[in-house]
Amino acid sequence: MDEKLTEISSLGEFGLIDRITKEFTNRNVTTLKSVGDDAAVIACPEDEEIVVTTDMLVEGVHFDLTYVPLKHLGYKSAIVNFSDIYAMGGQPRQITVSLAISSRFAVEHIEQLYQGIKTACDIYGVDLVGGDTTASRSGLVISVTCIGAVKKGKAIYRDGAKDTDLICVSGDLGAAYMGLQLLEREKAASAGRKDFVPQFGGKEYIVERQLKPEARRDVVAMLEEAGIHPTSMMDVSDGLSSELLHICHDSHTGCRVYEDRIPIDYQTAVMAEELGMNLVTAALNGGEDYELLFTVPLTDHDRVEKLKGIKIIGHITKEDMGCALVTRDGTEMTLKAQGFTHY
Amino acid sequence: MDEKLTEISSLGEFGLIDRITKEFTNRNVTTLKSVGDDAAVIACPEDEEIVVTTDMLVEGVHFDLTYVPLKHLGYKSAIVNFSDIYAMGGQPRQITVSLAISSRFAVEHIEQLYQGIKTACDIYGVDLVGGDTTASRSGLVISVTCIGAVKKGKAIYRDGAKDTDLICVSGDLGAAYMGLQLLEREKAASAGRKDFVPQFGGKEYIVERQLKPEARRDVVAMLEEAGIHPTSMMDVSDGLSSELLHICHDSHTGCRVYEDRIPIDYQTAVMAEELGMNLVTAALNGGEDYELLFTVPLTDHDRVEKLKGIKIIGHITKEDMGCALVTRDGTEMTLKAQGFTHY
Repeated sequence: MDEKLTEISSLGEFGLIDRITKEFTNRNVTTLKSVGDDAAVIACPEDEEIVVTTDMLVEGVHFDLTYVPLKHLGYKSAIVNFSDIYAMGGQPRQITVSLAISSRFAVEHIEQLYQGIKTACDIYGVDLVGGDTTASRSGLVISVTCIGAVKKGKAIYRDGAKDTDLICVSGDLGAAYMGLQLLEREKAASAGRKDFVPQFGGKEYIVERQLKPEARRDVVAMLEEAGIHPTSMMDVSDGLSSELLHICHDSHTGCRVYEDRIPIDYQTAVMAEELGMNLVTAALNGGEDYELLFTVPLTDHDRVEKLKGIKIIGHITKEDMGCALVTRDGTEMTLKAQGFTHY
Repeated sequence: MDEKLTEISSLGEFGLIDRITKEFTNRNVTTLKSVGDDAAVIACPEDEEIVVTTDMLVEGVHFDLTYVPLKHLGYKSAIVNFSDIYAMGGQPRQITVSLAISSRFAVEHIEQLYQGIKTACDIYGVDLVGGDTTASRSGLVISVTCIGAVKKGKAIYRDGAKDTDLICVSGDLGAAYMGLQLLEREKAASAGRKDFVPQFGGKEYIVERQLKPEARRDVVAMLEEAGIHPTSMMDVSDGLSSELLHICHDSHTGCRVYEDRIPIDYQTAVMAEELGMNLVTAALNGGEDYELLFTVPLTDHDRVEKLKGIKIIGHITKEDMGCALVTRDGTEMTLKAQGFTHY
């Protein structure tokens, strides 16, 4: 270990927790007791319900520290959880962060990771209220749980889509996946070369989508302001196809999605071209976009069409119609879940 | 892999989740939405607050599958979280379970783990409401978050102990630690011997304390029934010394604990004798007992003394008195935290 770095064993678990958590301040009135007891205590206003989600990120499976800065990793590990809370129509309020850390990590590394978590908490107004830190035999494992709040009875589930509902998605799709392909390509190209400079020029957007995704708090706010209540909603973490199939399965419906309506950034398209990959496949199955996919009644058409950054990509059908992508030439292709699989 | 076992990749993440979660049923009216959406939704009755705790267990650090059956491991991973909720004076209601699983585990192994989790949930009345399952590059990592409820304003913290308060502990201490020593001894003795039969005769209690701990729901109920409101409370997970120092640090007090008052089971004593280990050290620093350590006002002396299985082991002092163990011969020894450290 570099001599300027501090070994975690020199602080111990409690010392490490003290050093990290003193940087965090609470901002939610519902956070009654934060880090430092057997459990955190959270108030729940009368007109709210609690929303809980959890995600685990494993080194070598979900991230590669060759090209993922620890600060970005911390940021992303918080964001992916916030995204799940927004996907319920809720607001993230508190997180717990558990880490298993191998001996190759120093205190300064863990501080970088928490800097990213803190930045995410600062931006999204979330309090760090607990966690666990422990040794690991190999690599880094991050487990984040996020607690949020939603107005009583207003949580948006996956099972509420109805025949003729419009299918909408925020932002654009496939960029995070193509960013990953680019990072992997540059990693392979750099192997064994000390003087290597990765080529990201003109592709900053897709790299950022992979390394520093955002959760669509703004979309939830925009929908509320417009008085639009989605009948179902999910975040796009495993890929559009996979999420659509979840909504249709749970809602007992089918769907039609139009290839030419799927929002794709030009950098995503250029990268797919460059790597000889199918662009639509990347957009349908790429995953990690953390955009919001939702359905609204047909009567909301005019209102939803006016929303900036929201695209109507298809509609819900009766269940026996099945789930299909309508290609540019009018052909129907059955949707298949080819979401990320780590097994 | 044994040909009778099912590879996890043959089911995929969603298939595995389906197979496991179909065994679980919800029993809490506050569980509004369980597994199967972006997040779980939990109601919070008007007179309650939410309590949240999380623990991570790492193979090779916290458990050794050579002698820990997966079912017991699942049970314990839930119990250690329930224990933290009881230590706040709360009731556990929901858990999320995240797993990172290496390729040497089959579906059947994961089912055994969840059988243990289910048994704990059944006994303690807790619902499984979410989680995440992913691959790991080596070994098994279990991250459990527990959500509980406590009456508004009634959470019992670590910082409420007052000068002259009585220090009380439930059950007995050091048994889980001596059980671990025994298991480690038998593991070492069995190395390379196929016909080896471990010797646990007459030591079943300490083995069970290590492999299948319980959370002291009964103590919380007993205190409530007796109208006793502890001024501070913690569960004994890192060892009595460590926990006492936490309470005294946070409460700005000192303490005196009497060696001859510390409850120790005879099997613990026999094992310490056999291994030539210091019994008091084991009881003070052993950890993993999951008993409840709490303080009550001196005026509760008669009421707390009548409680079955509760021992008064000392008293809180002014801060400048420091924290000390009073040995059988009246000597004062400064308490030091030598809790489990995994670094």
